[in-house]
Amino acid sequence: MSVAAAGGTPAPDSGGDGGAALARALFAPRTVALIGASGDPRKTTSRPQRFLARHGFAGRVVPVNPTRAEIFGVPCAPDVGAIDGPVDHAFVMVGTDAVEDALAACAAKGVACATILASGFSEAGAEGKARQARVVEIARDAGMRLVGPNSLGVIDTRAGLTLSANAVLELPRLTKGRIGVISQSGSMIGALASRGEARGLGFSTLVSTGNEADLTVGDFIRLMVADEGTDAILLFLETVREPQRLMAACRLAHEAGKPVVAYRLGRSGAGEALAVSHTGAIAGSGAAVDAFLRHAGIYLVDSFEALVEAPQLLAGARGAGEGRIAVVTTTGGGGAMMVDALGTRGATAVPPPPGTVETLAEHGLALDDHAPLIDLTLAGARPDTVGAAVGALMAEETVDAVVMVVGSSAQFRPDLAVDPLLAFADAPKPFAVFVVPDAPDALRRLADAGIAAFRTPEACADALAALVRRTPPPPETDAQHGTALTPHLPQGRTRLDEAEGAALLARLGLPFAEMATAATAEDAAAAADRIGYPVALKILSPDIAHKTDTGGVVLGLGDGAAVASAATEMLERVAKAHPEAAISGVLVQRMERGLGEVLAGYRRDPVVGPIVTVAMGGVLAELYRDAAIRPAPVTVETARAMIAEVRGLKALSGWRGLPRGDLDALADAVAALSQLGASGLERVAEAEVNPLLVKAEGAGVAALDALVVLTP
Amino acid sequence: MSVAAAGGTPAPDSGGDGGAALARALFAPRTVALIGASGDPRKTTSRPQRFLARHGFAGRVVPVNPTRAEIFGVPCAPDVGAIDGPVDHAFVMVGTDAVEDALAACAAKGVACATILASGFSEAGAEGKARQARVVEIARDAGMRLVGPNSLGVIDTRAGLTLSANAVLELPRLTKGRIGVISQSGSMIGALASRGEARGLGFSTLVSTGNEADLTVGDFIRLMVADEGTDAILLFLETVREPQRLMAACRLAHEAGKPVVAYRLGRSGAGEALAVSHTGAIAGSGAAVDAFLRHAGIYLVDSFEALVEAPQLLAGARGAGEGRIAVVTTTGGGGAMMVDALGTRGATAVPPPPGTVETLAEHGLALDDHAPLIDLTLAGARPDTVGAAVGALMAEETVDAVVMVVGSSAQFRPDLAVDPLLAFADAPKPFAVFVVPDAPDALRRLADAGIAAFRTPEACADALAALVRRTPPPPETDAQHGTALTPHLPQGRTRLDEAEGAALLARLGLPFAEMATAATAEDAAAAADRIGYPVALKILSPDIAHKTDTGGVVLGLGDGAAVASAATEMLERVAKAHPEAAISGVLVQRMERGLGEVLAGYRRDPVVGPIVTVAMGGVLAELYRDAAIRPAPVTVETARAMIAEVRGLKALSGWRGLPRGDLDALADAVAALSQLGASGLERVAEAEVNPLLVKAEGAGVAALDALVVLTP
Repeated sequence: MSVAAAGGTPAPDSGGDGGAALARALFAPRTVALIGASGDPRKTTSRPQRFLARHGFAGRVVPVNPTRAEIFGVPCAPDVGAIDGPVDHAFVMVGTDAVEDALAACAAKGVACATILASGFSEAGAEGKARQARVVEIARDAGMRLVGPNSLGVIDTRAGLTLSANAVLELPRLTKGRIGVISQSGSMIGALASRGEARGLGFSTLVSTGNEADLTVGDFIRLMVADEGTDAILLFLETVREPQRLMAACRLAHEAGKPVVAYRLGRSGAGEALAVSHTGAIAGSGAAVDAFLRHAGIYLVDSFEALVEAPQLLAGARGAGEGRIAVVTTTGGGGAMMVDALGTRGATAVPPPPGTVETLAEHGLALDDHAPLIDLTLAGARPDTVGAAVGALMAEETVDAVVMVVGSSAQFRPDLAVDPLLAFADAPKPFAVFVVPDAPDALRRLADAGIAAFRTPEACADALAALVRRTPPPPETDAQHGTALTPHLPQGRTRLDEAEGAALLARLGLPFAEMATAATAEDAAAAADRIGYPVALKILSPDIAHKTDTGGVVLGLGDGAAVASAATEMLERVAKAHPEAAISGVLVQRMERGLGEVLAGYRRDPVVGPIVTVAMGGVLAELYRDAAIRPAPVTVETARAMIAEVRGLKALSGWRGLPRGDLDALADAVAALSQLGASGLERVAEAEVNPLLVKAEGAGVAALDALVVLTP
Repeated sequence: MSVAAAGGTPAPDSGGDGGAALARALFAPRTVALIGASGDPRKTTSRPQRFLARHGFAGRVVPVNPTRAEIFGVPCAPDVGAIDGPVDHAFVMVGTDAVEDALAACAAKGVACATILASGFSEAGAEGKARQARVVEIARDAGMRLVGPNSLGVIDTRAGLTLSANAVLELPRLTKGRIGVISQSGSMIGALASRGEARGLGFSTLVSTGNEADLTVGDFIRLMVADEGTDAILLFLETVREPQRLMAACRLAHEAGKPVVAYRLGRSGAGEALAVSHTGAIAGSGAAVDAFLRHAGIYLVDSFEALVEAPQLLAGARGAGEGRIAVVTTTGGGGAMMVDALGTRGATAVPPPPGTVETLAEHGLALDDHAPLIDLTLAGARPDTVGAAVGALMAEETVDAVVMVVGSSAQFRPDLAVDPLLAFADAPKPFAVFVVPDAPDALRRLADAGIAAFRTPEACADALAALVRRTPPPPETDAQHGTALTPHLPQGRTRLDEAEGAALLARLGLPFAEMATAATAEDAAAAADRIGYPVALKILSPDIAHKTDTGGVVLGLGDGAAVASAATEMLERVAKAHPEAAISGVLVQRMERGLGEVLAGYRRDPVVGPIVTVAMGGVLAELYRDAAIRPAPVTVETARAMIAEVRGLKALSGWRGLPRGDLDALADAVAALSQLGASGLERVAEAEVNPLLVKAEGAGVAALDALVVLTP
């Protein structure tokens, strides 16, 4: 595997050479040990040796098996220590219980890296977790790197390295290509390779990461970014481990112009539960994970086919500008399917610009310059006309990407239907081709030329939508900014009372409705006089979660007398209802009016860490799953983008002539709340402002309630 | 084409024999005339003759061309009249301007049916519409039936009838099969045939319907229902013409147990615009069309692949009960993708029932009885184990459908991976197979056995979701029920004032808040005294659409004096603002309180006719596209189903402990409003009750505002 400088900071664990040494040991080893190799062809543990021979691995292969002198004619070593000369990569195929001894032997031998096939580790309960910890310790002490455990192996087509038992290696040969694959789901490396081959798409390296006890997805991305032979990286994900390592690697990929495309399991509730149980990963909210992946600049696709077919569209893509997609076709129905598939994914097909209309008039075609489909009809199916149409659109300033939809002729005359498109392999704009009939030859011609070819309108639209939606990862500095807060947080408590919470969030810059605390009814009345009427009265206690349930909230008090009596009653009532609760008094708060109520939330997600959320207040956010999420902290610009994502908030943006809310102030508030993610306040597990009242444009926002949850 | 009794009432135009004679002439003609045939192989008009020979058409083929004595060795007729003996089917390939003369000749000759290739008719402006009308008249007068114009032709694989220039006919042979295809988008018959062939799926008849000047999609469904050689019918739709003919045909298909599966273009705004311009159909709301198609019992799929792959799943399907789908796999990642794809489409994958867990324990597998994926793992990849798993699930009462997800072995050992599944071809429950790698041989083995095989998890889930969602078409009687109303509707007016509208809808059974009309302020005060306070006051005029804009509404009036003065001011104010408006006085209405506001709407859709809508009140319905639509009238049961579809209404169904609204009363109100669709009140173009106030359970609903729009 040829290696260039990765650029950016090398991984702490990459030996400072951008990972070159590790990459060589992993993907282009000189000597490979097959620990637990079998001579019984029926056993999967016999396959890797056969596959290495079949796929022309040039290095040395040493089967390790104490019971055999030779396997398939190759001399066996009784154990890895008995191998003369250095061993770069050991494929450990022994049973779960034998893994520790095998690794200890590898460590003693000074093996550079080991890939562990066995399952029964972190995904298998407490005992498995302990076993995995011991394995990691063995490796770390010896400076040996690990793939897995629970890894189906590592494949590098260029070195002919096939350390896997996956059936796809039964293929006589794997097409060498420039796409790297990293999969948390082992068997998927086979499925992706198989579907790639069928399209004439080749791969460079394929890795099944397993439990990622040592090397994680982020580390493999880093290695593939450094690989001159890899242009695009595919991820098949079940979860995220070491999110910051992943984010850093995605920054390198972005700088190197190598797209990272991901399909994530677990977009449905059921699927999420599965992905988790399947890999022993911690449960996390799928929405938070997707938000994190998008934030990292990863192209997230919704369909399996798109994962295979998108890379050629995205490799070297300079983004999709304003997302104006021109759809050209000679077959109306197929073209309309494409336009439809784009539209249902929020991408926009545009009518032909005047320049293109003129160009095609010269070819005798009268285009409809209003329709979002550039239909050349059968009359325009001549190669020169098709070429002229695509060429003209590539030159249009108001077009950001071009899709050609090819009809029946792709199946029977690929030379006429497809060859005129090959000229656009290096076009300045993203170029995709959807082939309507079943036309493997046409797909292959396009793939060979490096043009993204799609079998279905859905996969094509999925990839284009991912391209349009994608934003580059934030510069590293972004993660640093934010107010460094070091307030005193009460020890041993799991929540702040409302006044404490408000005080904390106010220090971040969140505007709260004017409030004061009072220990007695008299103080409350006095505070209300200062604040001005009407006021709201709330019980003040860190121990009472749902204040309203036991009459801990009274709204709209109009004068001091009302406040005093309400406070007296409330203190008695709540004390009776919660004898155990520590009650420090009441909170007096000015009543505020606004155009709408929003929920602003912050939490440390168990998988991806600090995230900030904006949603409609009340039950609607939940009913409509209408919320915007980002890793925290966010800039005000990002907060604006989040607000624009929440459909319900359109009602506050002047939509249908409704009065505008102060969305700028809302963006400031969201950005302020998100600073919890950079404030060094690790003890803040959750913070929720609900409702956050949005007033008329220019009048700002007012936080009415603050809930802050701490880790003890 | 073999023909059985169609059952049900024959189409008015089918000659009373269930369409047998028409079917023979269309699909199995004894003599075919190719009018405008060319001897120049480069011309598409030369193709049909070549294709007929290639595909072994047994009937007589007569090319018609006045300038040639013979074409490809077959004697030419100068015109259709010169052909001796009867002509069953004429394929008219002449240019637009020559079509009328050609048809006149066919009419004179007594040709049974003609398929017209040329475009330039109803899709081409007023002139085209007139041309189409003349063509229809020629045919009708002669009792000749028409396919098209703008039809790419008709194919019947069994008769070897290939009246089309579509390139797919370049295939050496088309697989004979039992699936019929009806497409409004001509080129799609080629694309579907091509993709079917690639999967080993054959077709019986394929029809490009074009503009449907005479024969419509409904008529072709009826013919295919009557065809003993067709088990399932695929529709590629751009719009709906003659909705009632389509509905009746779908009833016959349902009775015959032949699934009708449809992909509809135009699910996005852009796509809808295209589908319309493309066929010259009238614009209609896509949501209304989908609602109509679902109501007809059509399986509506969202993806192109599903349209090709679903039929074998649905043919003979006895429904999917409660939609409990069991997903079995030997490859965790692929299985999880399947579970995920189902979940994101609202379908449910269920954990293995105890019986299945036991059965597999006997095979040495310990299943997770909580996970919604039945993962046999590599250990369970043995044919007998897979067979046992699927067999056990087929026998479970708590499982309604089974999906097998096959991994890499499908590509290299289809015998082991797929053959154990063939036994379930005639299983009592829907059975689908998703093949994870690219494995054409496996797909073909499954197709040959009549098992539904899918290339992508998305298409498989799409088809299963359509199966779960599907409801049978309503019995014919349903369309009849409803109150026959014959109230006097004011002539020449385009809207009723609020009191008139409320009176009309009240007669259908809609409960309105108590109200009274008053010509003067004094009468208004008196009316308010009778009704009880507080009351709302509204201006009464058919000419003022937005009452609130000019102070035409005042709420919460507490006593007679307030009512009198408010009425006086309102009458003056509005008269000044709308000098042209006819003002008949004011409406006094009791103020009501409720748990939520709903919109109930009725309109005559230009494409599918009367429809009824339920949605959230206010702006949210529009923001979230959260509405339920059905053809009107609907039964109370259907109204309940509609209410359950509106996500926002969960907030009134006891969700999260919120108080329950009177959804039974809401269903009654919706069903009542929908009676406009059966009331013989064709002049009512639109009726909207917004807000319709939903009170607490048992307290009913109250309509607060009624807007009724008339066609003059």
